[in-house]
Amino acid sequence: MKAGGSLRKYAILRWEEGKFSPSRQDQLACEEPLEIRLCWGPLEESQTRSVISTLRMPGMDYELALGWLFGEGLIQSHSDVVKMTYCLGKNRAEQQYNILLVRLKPGLNPDLSKLERQSVSHGGCGLCGKQEIASLKQLLQPDFSLIEPRLDPVILAQLQTLAQPQQKAFAKTGGVHAAALFSPQGQLQHLHEDVGRHNAVDKVIGAALMLGQVPLNRQILFLSGRAGFELVQKALMASIPVIVSVGAPTSLALELARSYEQTLIGFTKPERFNLYSGAQRFQQFS
Amino acid sequence: MKAGGSLRKYAILRWEEGKFSPSRQDQLACEEPLEIRLCWGPLEESQTRSVISTLRMPGMDYELALGWLFGEGLIQSHSDVVKMTYCLGKNRAEQQYNILLVRLKPGLNPDLSKLERQSVSHGGCGLCGKQEIASLKQLLQPDFSLIEPRLDPVILAQLQTLAQPQQKAFAKTGGVHAAALFSPQGQLQHLHEDVGRHNAVDKVIGAALMLGQVPLNRQILFLSGRAGFELVQKALMASIPVIVSVGAPTSLALELARSYEQTLIGFTKPERFNLYSGAQRFQQFS
Repeated sequence: MKAGGSLRKYAILRWEEGKFSPSRQDQLACEEPLEIRLCWGPLEESQTRSVISTLRMPGMDYELALGWLFGEGLIQSHSDVVKMTYCLGKNRAEQQYNILLVRLKPGLNPDLSKLERQSVSHGGCGLCGKQEIASLKQLLQPDFSLIEPRLDPVILAQLQTLAQPQQKAFAKTGGVHAAALFSPQGQLQHLHEDVGRHNAVDKVIGAALMLGQVPLNRQILFLSGRAGFELVQKALMASIPVIVSVGAPTSLALELARSYEQTLIGFTKPERFNLYSGAQRFQQFS
Repeated sequence: MKAGGSLRKYAILRWEEGKFSPSRQDQLACEEPLEIRLCWGPLEESQTRSVISTLRMPGMDYELALGWLFGEGLIQSHSDVVKMTYCLGKNRAEQQYNILLVRLKPGLNPDLSKLERQSVSHGGCGLCGKQEIASLKQLLQPDFSLIEPRLDPVILAQLQTLAQPQQKAFAKTGGVHAAALFSPQGQLQHLHEDVGRHNAVDKVIGAALMLGQVPLNRQILFLSGRAGFELVQKALMASIPVIVSVGAPTSLALELARSYEQTLIGFTKPERFNLYSGAQRFQQFS
């Protein structure tokens, strides 16, 4: 087993025309656990804590970690991180690239109580979606100030077509999601893929963080699948004013986007899409 | 906001033929947090702990809770649960059906340390997928003993067609996944939908638990989407010998299924599918 690969080949059988026949080597998206450990404090007495384990497609792990930490509010920029290294265990063959140690810059003390609230109990504490959004609004103030892009619906409708040539793992496996950042003019800035939709978004935002591009208030987040609450939340954390998804939004995703006047689009096809929120960014409504 | 509903209507805009026009009330899948609290010990000194919060589509919450607790190994059967009730807060209008209190039968002391290992750090502890599977194999011994159904590939290829009329939330929203249990003869036993793929599976297994049908060693699990590691794991916990998914499996899902000789099928269409594991359940290979 090659560690670190995003795809893996298997001999499988195909059933077609009433019989099974062996298939040529079939490619599957690799799914492996990644544990992120956060390390902070002075070197002599530094503290380390495991903050998340996720099942992800290996590759772009640094970006994934940065994007996730940013989305949870644990870092504000790439410079909050001094160093990222894989922890290699005794048995290196078996455990190579699945623990990532992230060292914060001196003086930063991450507020992990917030993390527990958000990750373990999802900020919900059993409240309804309305209160979920109300409590988020106190924490989350996206910097949309710079942006009022005039969006061109013809360009937005093309984003899936523009993203497709870069969805290389999807082309081989049919089993992964993509997230991408586009300019309002339809220029692709970043695209990453993962077995988890949220991981793909973390990778894209992490990649932008590395280049000092956050807040992303002049960018469009493209999602190859559906738009749920957590993905809208991640976009808002990065001040992304526009989300274009190929699939459906959920009720809570729509309500969160509306509460920020974020533009949320779904069921995007070359000739049509649905606009759920944020019409003011289009000429017709401004 | 109506609590407890699975769907919600919104006025939206549709862009088509170069212009926006208001759409009739559009239905979205409702996404709301559900917190499950486990309660055990003698009544006078009972202990309560929040064990998970998940974003789910409301409806079938008891089934969801049962299925999830079973998948985590915290209960063995429906009779391990004495009572399930929603916790209603002071402000009932705002918080009605999003905390579920599950009381275990006297004498049961759930091993929550295992839960932390599995949910928070996913059993991975930074290990590679191979070790993930090795450690699962010690915990997880599905009761496949009763079953050797001869599977009919023609029936399996029809499962999506058979499930479709029951995917009622999908028909209205285009934004939810379904999981279902079928007999080897293609009879639909249970079908449930959710915004989360894993929640749909928990609901289906929970519904079967309520009817005393677990171990499900004569059933087929149908998935409307992809088959990831966690879904295969949930199926194994319930001793389900066959998974038929419409989408792709991941590498780790395939490897876990193979390690148990579980039958795993993907990319299922009426005229063809891929067989990734467990060929011995078909006449042609037995």
